[in-house]
Amino acid sequence: MSRNIAIIGATGAVGQELLSILEQRQFPIKSLKLLASKRSAGKTIKFKGKDLTVEELTHDSFKGIDLVLSSAGGSISRDYAPSAVKAGAVVVDNTSHFRMDPNVPLVVPEVNPLDIKKHKGIIANPNCTTIIMSLPLFPLYNAFGLERVSVCTYQAASGAGALAMDELKSECVALGQNQTFERTVIPFQYAYNLFPHNAPYNDGSEAKAKVKAPKGYCEEEWKMVAETRKIFGDESIRVAPTCVRVPVLRAHSEAINIQFKKKTSVEEIYAVLAKAPGVVILEDPANNHWPMPVDVSGKDPVFVGRIRQDLSQENTFDIWVVGDQIRKGAALNAIQIAEML
Amino acid sequence: MSRNIAIIGATGAVGQELLSILEQRQFPIKSLKLLASKRSAGKTIKFKGKDLTVEELTHDSFKGIDLVLSSAGGSISRDYAPSAVKAGAVVVDNTSHFRMDPNVPLVVPEVNPLDIKKHKGIIANPNCTTIIMSLPLFPLYNAFGLERVSVCTYQAASGAGALAMDELKSECVALGQNQTFERTVIPFQYAYNLFPHNAPYNDGSEAKAKVKAPKGYCEEEWKMVAETRKIFGDESIRVAPTCVRVPVLRAHSEAINIQFKKKTSVEEIYAVLAKAPGVVILEDPANNHWPMPVDVSGKDPVFVGRIRQDLSQENTFDIWVVGDQIRKGAALNAIQIAEML
Repeated sequence: MSRNIAIIGATGAVGQELLSILEQRQFPIKSLKLLASKRSAGKTIKFKGKDLTVEELTHDSFKGIDLVLSSAGGSISRDYAPSAVKAGAVVVDNTSHFRMDPNVPLVVPEVNPLDIKKHKGIIANPNCTTIIMSLPLFPLYNAFGLERVSVCTYQAASGAGALAMDELKSECVALGQNQTFERTVIPFQYAYNLFPHNAPYNDGSEAKAKVKAPKGYCEEEWKMVAETRKIFGDESIRVAPTCVRVPVLRAHSEAINIQFKKKTSVEEIYAVLAKAPGVVILEDPANNHWPMPVDVSGKDPVFVGRIRQDLSQENTFDIWVVGDQIRKGAALNAIQIAEML
Repeated sequence: MSRNIAIIGATGAVGQELLSILEQRQFPIKSLKLLASKRSAGKTIKFKGKDLTVEELTHDSFKGIDLVLSSAGGSISRDYAPSAVKAGAVVVDNTSHFRMDPNVPLVVPEVNPLDIKKHKGIIANPNCTTIIMSLPLFPLYNAFGLERVSVCTYQAASGAGALAMDELKSECVALGQNQTFERTVIPFQYAYNLFPHNAPYNDGSEAKAKVKAPKGYCEEEWKMVAETRKIFGDESIRVAPTCVRVPVLRAHSEAINIQFKKKTSVEEIYAVLAKAPGVVILEDPANNHWPMPVDVSGKDPVFVGRIRQDLSQENTFDIWVVGDQIRKGAALNAIQIAEML
């Protein structure tokens, strides 16, 4: 059952994590081809102790390939995934391009593994914030029903890629020493600052009408609504998201406020989440210690804690969720899909 | 109408800001006494070009003083404010100690200025997150009524004081250069990380029963509920807060989701906030630029933007609010109270 694998975008933050997870999980690999832009072609990347040379991505890159893991951006997937499928490969796509395509399953293995079977060559990996929210939310949805979910995110630099992570550190070092700094990756000052998520925003003007998010929302927020509905297979789910980038290096945090349909309690919610696949309860209430980005960076599960009753409304509860954006939020989820194939 | 003023905690972040605002606003000062712990006594601080020497705070420090601005922590205010009142001074207290005392008015000048008249020697300044939320919320409460308010905070290092701000920068510089760092102020890694607010948390155990927050809440969160009710003079207000410390230097951000009683629209909300005292609408939607901590640091107003309809629930809207925690969140509000006296 060994596979011939190609990775598109092997030099990026997610690409690097894909390689490390393939190695850790001893994924059965017959051959491994690293594909990237012309600019990155010729670079060498270590895998299982050997140097692999990055090749330039072309429409002819996929001969003999069984599985493509693609994470080089939506337009690359749009242009090259069909060529890979035509060559007989299955594509697990980490970008947003195919996610809402009705012919493409959108999969979180702990939530809707059976949707994988419906694929026609492409399977989409959801957005990081959606994956992280879905792991604790789905078992609660099954147990108590969701009246409404309100979520505020605290998103790390890793969501903007490896260069953004480097830029955050360099900017923090420079400004922390009262030196000037010139940004090239992130549009606003990021060190010691934050900003509502810089994904394309729909201001209602005609020029932006191609944006699928409703007026006033940015795409990152609307993904949390539309993707959650598709993954759960329930268009009636009501999610109210606010997405914010914070100067954290890696791992996204989410403050999730949930009104349930059925009456429940803090104890019952802990009991459901204690058994939830891919979810770990991590907390030390006596020391006021709840999941933090540094606790979960590099780890596979999504970490949950600080479950409390919202006293402002009947049957409403708060949970605090932190997950490694690069691992479960992207690379790990993609490889779990590939393992199920 | 010149006053004899004493400042308790003059060497702290808020104390420093008090001095700079007194100077900027040309507050009528007959004499100025700087009081601090024995440790800080003897230090000199510049005010209007002159060096003032910090004196040790004792119960006899208040002879002839008309106005005390106190920001050295709750236990200091608890111990020394009564001595100041006995000596004939009015105390504007920046700490949490007297805020919920029914004999002490809790005042945001733009919201409940008339409450100042009810004082019996002490007037309390609300918590920073509460002040910042109250400025846009109060005119909306008057215009449309509040069904329920859900708020997630993104709180800066300044809320933990000047030493925490320095520590955040030093830690970011050290970890950004792969050096180790030893924290002494903040309990968790703060650089490139975040954590639910470290104010005392009520885990329901007996040892913590003195904490006034309900089970599962930290004190910072419960202040946003109880203080808002007291300032607005309406015990029926429902607020659902989640407070988080983020590695931002100065200025708190708040994502506020509001369900109104009366039907309204994004346009009507903008119109109300455009006229709201102490509130400035700051946004550039075409560039996806909304209020950010670096935009508002050192500024007096609370900045609001990104008002959008929450599509998950009837008559519900999101607003994004950022205010300088040291100025309007503390020092400026205290001096506005003093000006009204």
